[in-house]
Amino acid sequence: MIHLTKEGLLKEDNPFRRNFFNGLSGFKSVNLIGTADVSGRSNLALFSQVFHVGANPPLVGILFRPDTVIRHTLDNIFDTGFFTLNQISSNFYKKAHWTSARWEASEFEATGLKEEFLNGFFAPFVHESKLKMSCRLVETQTIKANQTLLVVGGIEDVYLEDESLRPDGSIDLNLLDTVTVSGLDEYHVGVKLARLTYARPNQQVEEIED
Amino acid sequence: MIHLTKEGLLKEDNPFRRNFFNGLSGFKSVNLIGTADVSGRSNLALFSQVFHVGANPPLVGILFRPDTVIRHTLDNIFDTGFFTLNQISSNFYKKAHWTSARWEASEFEATGLKEEFLNGFFAPFVHESKLKMSCRLVETQTIKANQTLLVVGGIEDVYLEDESLRPDGSIDLNLLDTVTVSGLDEYHVGVKLARLTYARPNQQVEEIED
Repeated sequence: MIHLTKEGLLKEDNPFRRNFFNGLSGFKSVNLIGTADVSGRSNLALFSQVFHVGANPPLVGILFRPDTVIRHTLDNIFDTGFFTLNQISSNFYKKAHWTSARWEASEFEATGLKEEFLNGFFAPFVHESKLKMSCRLVETQTIKANQTLLVVGGIEDVYLEDESLRPDGSIDLNLLDTVTVSGLDEYHVGVKLARLTYARPNQQVEEIED
Repeated sequence: MIHLTKEGLLKEDNPFRRNFFNGLSGFKSVNLIGTADVSGRSNLALFSQVFHVGANPPLVGILFRPDTVIRHTLDNIFDTGFFTLNQISSNFYKKAHWTSARWEASEFEATGLKEEFLNGFFAPFVHESKLKMSCRLVETQTIKANQTLLVVGGIEDVYLEDESLRPDGSIDLNLLDTVTVSGLDEYHVGVKLARLTYARPNQQVEEIED
């Protein structure tokens, strides 16, 4: 095993540190966030810091780094209260990554991803996405240690491919071909090991057949 | 596409809702958190809500659900200020899942995972883990919308398998055989698609050779 200390790591250059610390928590979800400004101009941005916050009420969290130069997404969420979350599949993950360039125009036009509007919701969805949802701004918190902003969104409507929803409510991410990211720029698909039974003392966990 | 509304989803039973909303954000990291109480009694717990917060200073975030019955981990972090994060590989993910049962004894003894202490750090590490780190409590925030607690930890020392650290600081999670979870109980390994170049306007992203 390599042993790295905080002091040693902070002496490494900035790209090394960013690569390294972004990889420590493991595989991360990666989503495209769709927003529009008050004039209706669309924006699409890639986020790897989106996570489940609660099921009742249904909530997601997103972290916004304070040093992000482009904060159109955050401005639009504050100005309008709306955003969409769109899971990314392997057939368009390169276009999704490309949205993170500093585009002047809408990232939809720039990358060729198709925007779509569903059931009158203000913010744009990604047509190619196989699982997407509309969200409203609920709350924000600032992490004092580094001024990162936690945005909590309430989930409203969810759209997903028919076969991906199982009778027990679980979602087949392998069927959706959902992509996950490690570090800053490394993309993967998931290969299922198993679902496991609810854990109880003195009873080995077993695989659940779907 | 299936269209599910918030109103419709909230009428589903509790297990359905939990399965469903836990799957919406995509693949999640999954880690074992090691703690000890003030008497030195070890605890090990499974968490899928651990995420990168920042690289300088190096910070991780963990969400603690308010309705979690067993909060030994949180109590121990508050009482001592210390915890460890341990990535999970496919060769021990079933034991890792089993730690979530309501054990009376230490989850190490109960599941057969081996505890280890490194360089005098107070909280136990998981011997089997191929990437693990020591952390200190830095800050907490309460999400008002559902009383979820966000614990921010500062990363101190990191231990990882030699070959997994690349010269640019990125970590090869495939080599570590790191596991990811979807929903509540479904485990996967990652299969790499590619690393992609830094995104720039008018220049297609390309795959990086490692």
